[in-house]
Amino acid sequence: MKRPSLYLFILLITVCQLAFAQNAQIQRVNPTNWWVGMKNPNLQLLIYGPNAGTLTYSLNYPGVKLVKAHTVENPNYAFLDLTIAPSAKPGLVRITGKRGNQTLTQPFELRARDRSPKGLGVTAADFIYLAMPDRFANGDPGNDKFADMADPNADRANPYYRHGGDLAGVVQHLDYLKDLGVTAIWLTPVLENNQPLTNEGGAMRSAYHGYGFTDHYAIDRRLGGNDAYVDFVKKAHAAGMKVVQDAVYNHVGINHWILKDLPMKSWLHQWPTYTNTSYKYQPITDPHGAEIDRRVTLDGWFVPHLPDLNQSNPYVANFLIQHALWTVENFGVDAWRVDTYMYNDQPFMNRCNAALLEEYPKIHIFGESWVNNVVDQAYYTRNNINFPFKSNQPGGLDFVLYASMLDALKQKFSWDDGVNRFYQALAQDAVYQDPNKLVTFLDNHDTDRYLSVIGDDLDKYRIGLTWLLTTRGIPSMYYGTEILMKNFKDPSDAEVRRDFPGGFVGDRENKFEASGRSSRENEAFQYVRKLANYRRSTPTLHTGKLMQFLPQDGTYVYFRYDGNKTVMVATNTNDKEISLDTSRFAERMNGFTSARNILTDATLNDLKLVKLPAKTALVLELMK
Amino acid sequence: MKRPSLYLFILLITVCQLAFAQNAQIQRVNPTNWWVGMKNPNLQLLIYGPNAGTLTYSLNYPGVKLVKAHTVENPNYAFLDLTIAPSAKPGLVRITGKRGNQTLTQPFELRARDRSPKGLGVTAADFIYLAMPDRFANGDPGNDKFADMADPNADRANPYYRHGGDLAGVVQHLDYLKDLGVTAIWLTPVLENNQPLTNEGGAMRSAYHGYGFTDHYAIDRRLGGNDAYVDFVKKAHAAGMKVVQDAVYNHVGINHWILKDLPMKSWLHQWPTYTNTSYKYQPITDPHGAEIDRRVTLDGWFVPHLPDLNQSNPYVANFLIQHALWTVENFGVDAWRVDTYMYNDQPFMNRCNAALLEEYPKIHIFGESWVNNVVDQAYYTRNNINFPFKSNQPGGLDFVLYASMLDALKQKFSWDDGVNRFYQALAQDAVYQDPNKLVTFLDNHDTDRYLSVIGDDLDKYRIGLTWLLTTRGIPSMYYGTEILMKNFKDPSDAEVRRDFPGGFVGDRENKFEASGRSSRENEAFQYVRKLANYRRSTPTLHTGKLMQFLPQDGTYVYFRYDGNKTVMVATNTNDKEISLDTSRFAERMNGFTSARNILTDATLNDLKLVKLPAKTALVLELMK
Repeated sequence: MKRPSLYLFILLITVCQLAFAQNAQIQRVNPTNWWVGMKNPNLQLLIYGPNAGTLTYSLNYPGVKLVKAHTVENPNYAFLDLTIAPSAKPGLVRITGKRGNQTLTQPFELRARDRSPKGLGVTAADFIYLAMPDRFANGDPGNDKFADMADPNADRANPYYRHGGDLAGVVQHLDYLKDLGVTAIWLTPVLENNQPLTNEGGAMRSAYHGYGFTDHYAIDRRLGGNDAYVDFVKKAHAAGMKVVQDAVYNHVGINHWILKDLPMKSWLHQWPTYTNTSYKYQPITDPHGAEIDRRVTLDGWFVPHLPDLNQSNPYVANFLIQHALWTVENFGVDAWRVDTYMYNDQPFMNRCNAALLEEYPKIHIFGESWVNNVVDQAYYTRNNINFPFKSNQPGGLDFVLYASMLDALKQKFSWDDGVNRFYQALAQDAVYQDPNKLVTFLDNHDTDRYLSVIGDDLDKYRIGLTWLLTTRGIPSMYYGTEILMKNFKDPSDAEVRRDFPGGFVGDRENKFEASGRSSRENEAFQYVRKLANYRRSTPTLHTGKLMQFLPQDGTYVYFRYDGNKTVMVATNTNDKEISLDTSRFAERMNGFTSARNILTDATLNDLKLVKLPAKTALVLELMK
Repeated sequence: MKRPSLYLFILLITVCQLAFAQNAQIQRVNPTNWWVGMKNPNLQLLIYGPNAGTLTYSLNYPGVKLVKAHTVENPNYAFLDLTIAPSAKPGLVRITGKRGNQTLTQPFELRARDRSPKGLGVTAADFIYLAMPDRFANGDPGNDKFADMADPNADRANPYYRHGGDLAGVVQHLDYLKDLGVTAIWLTPVLENNQPLTNEGGAMRSAYHGYGFTDHYAIDRRLGGNDAYVDFVKKAHAAGMKVVQDAVYNHVGINHWILKDLPMKSWLHQWPTYTNTSYKYQPITDPHGAEIDRRVTLDGWFVPHLPDLNQSNPYVANFLIQHALWTVENFGVDAWRVDTYMYNDQPFMNRCNAALLEEYPKIHIFGESWVNNVVDQAYYTRNNINFPFKSNQPGGLDFVLYASMLDALKQKFSWDDGVNRFYQALAQDAVYQDPNKLVTFLDNHDTDRYLSVIGDDLDKYRIGLTWLLTTRGIPSMYYGTEILMKNFKDPSDAEVRRDFPGGFVGDRENKFEASGRSSRENEAFQYVRKLANYRRSTPTLHTGKLMQFLPQDGTYVYFRYDGNKTVMVATNTNDKEISLDTSRFAERMNGFTSARNILTDATLNDLKLVKLPAKTALVLELMK
């Protein structure tokens, strides 16, 4: 007897719920706005809210057409394909959603494009400074933590917690960077990472590094939010520095809003049981590779808390590509560093790159593909190898040159070792369409710090930085290298991401100032500063050709040259001084009679024999 | 008073000498003969003898024209450009040389081409056996030494002397090789090496290895001469084995007859002072390379007693190319191994390869380019990289795979090491147009012997040979590997070129016979024999595709497959047995239910878990 009444009650509840649910809402529209006058007239709006997918959409705005409204598995989503004619004017587009008696109006802003600089690109004329904003400088202690965020902690004593650094902190040190010779700033990702602190099989996972996005259209509040990023880019530009955005397409944070209520199962790469990527890149380029190995590499998850986006899903692809365009247009960033480039769907990457380059022809894109050989590295940039797939990426991070420079500094000179490693890596540049577009580096936020790798040896430190700042490519330097920050990686990675001393309230030392640095640190700082400023003012080091000579007896000599100037870089990796007979270099030295040592400003009046002190790289500007 | 009469006397002598010299002679014509019906109608005869260049040449033979007679710096040479029409008949062409009253007639034979097999090529269906004839077997003790040769010694106790091995010795062991599964024999060069034993700055230089030619048209008498080579090729062919000629274009022996009286200074690469090659290949492919480094690599001499031929001299080029064609046509060899390939002038090599391929479309050419990376290796074969220079070489010796296989056997398994090395080398095959045309090996006459490199470990020995005989490419094996000959290189190189026991009169042991081998040696021999014979009868291992899976936990699995068969090769490099879950290999194993272990002939009736004993490579033919 009881049962029927219970069923009736449940039925009643359910009907009520359905009736209530049928009142659709719109809670999010992505992109959050757009612009008139973009080259590509197409735009796909993601509309999210309870039953948002059950509405019938229309709009009435001159020059804007709703071409198609897509519904998907989840009724809470609609995807609206718009076209925006060149004639369309800025203003609020009112999107109407109807269902039965319900009518909803959602405003969507079309802005005018401003003329402020954006998408300027970085080239070999630049010197990029890579900083992790949480660990660089705290300009606004008021935004260090928020009780309503998934990880509400901030504590500089804890390696996994936020330390309070922010965009205002970077702004406060633009003068420092400019003085150092920096021309472009690359911050690890600034998008909202409202991720919890998690324990993944014993490994603590935090998100202060920024690689787990939780909302593509919000800059993290703890870094200052969207306004702070606009301000940072504007001030960097005003100081003559460009901004590199660190982009992540491969995955999002487990706390991304869209994961709470996926538009469709195929938004992510799904597996019967959790499957991690193998982190192995060989299956992608291997003509003998197995499909399963390729799938695990590409579609396996980077880690459990970073779900893998399915970029072959066209809604996902549109979402990501439009966000990239929106970011450049909205914030005015100049270049695009792409995280875990090789784990992305490569046809998608090509579409994404093409979209950015169509709108911003000078923008530079350089992805992270951590490989150990030039063939695999070439695959992910414009190359000279007839791979079945042709990448259109203009640049790339040069992991091969990175490893080779460290080997060159660590190893004793022998047939193939020591400085031969660096030489041999460059000697394989024929695989790239333009090796000068690769971004070079000696360390980054994921590696042991440079100074520790080379045994805390200041002589080697100078040699490596001299190579970085005078060979081909776009040099980048990890923050703190200039003040001799060092360390090896630890499980938290915090040891190689230490706070920049002087960037935080209460710091005993301020290494942004000469007075706060030891004499050794000042020596290092001035070395970088001298070289970086020489590089900045020497177009030959940006666009000049490179000619390198076979290393011999622990020495390695190369030239950068063009119609205006010839710069000779002569390295002695030996422990004792060498008198270098320069007759072998006649191809590049003929006609020159003297030289200026650009590091000491001394003049060399005899170029036949050049004294190379032990463990030194000389930079000589040749003179007639 | 005495002086005028002395001058008069000297003048008289000089006039007499000139008068005598004006009687021209012809001592040599190269090529020594030619054939009618060659595809290329052109032939350039080198005519040598006192004042041979001062004669006016003519000939009268149906279908043969003397197009041009060239004189060069040295009056003792003439170069005659002939054309031989398709209509020309075999016979003796009488070449007439006139000068004043003198008339000379030089017969030159045009032969009919025979139908015997030649230029058959080697493919991945083959298994090449590399032997050094002086050290393999002495079939004719009567030709061990000749008192009229520059090095008149033979002494098996001396590492630098000839040991007496010869072509007849190889002929005597054709059955042995055939039984072993060999299908092609590559002998180190057999051309005359009438070189003295010299002491080069403390290093003894002998020529028993064959790489210092002194007459291109004579097989060394100590190997049996031209007739013995004809006989050897004929008998090898009769036994179903092909012959690989070891060719040297880069240099000749210091005792080459032409060096006693060079046609012109530019016959050789000349330097103001002796200049050795740097042996460095990077300057050739380096887009940043210096011209001087390229010149030293290419034009520097290999060693002082091996003068460097200038192949950009068209007379030199014709001389070498015609000799190559003559060799194939005259002796019937099938393939062409090119010594020091990368030190040759590459446009010349392309012309030479094209000439051989035009006449013998199936011939295979594989040069020695000892490099440490696939980019440089690809440069010297048909490749997929847009280098400014495009090689037309069909094959090449795979030095990269060689090093990777040894690393795979020597190193402990880790992220990039151990068997990953082998896997990663193959994973870069995209750079080659056809990696299956590369010749693979585990050692050769210039390296430490395989067994010693892998620590005399019979388990590893079997693994490496299994890889060699089942992966892509044309496998080659150095003589004696099958009977566990071992050793590291010594200054004389003789330690890795020891006499094959049983090949020489007085040998206490005869390892050509099972009864002369230890049980360990027989085990090794039978392993190679079993695999080589399986390979010979299994087209899937010749032309089937290769699919390799990511190495995991010290295991490495790959498949050779085609429409007929699937062969699984599963390696366990660990020190303990592993039960291999095969579900990851479904792409290749689906539909198969059992397998035959081709080494033990055992049947596996369950393929879900495959037991891999410690340090073993299983070869399983899958069955439905």
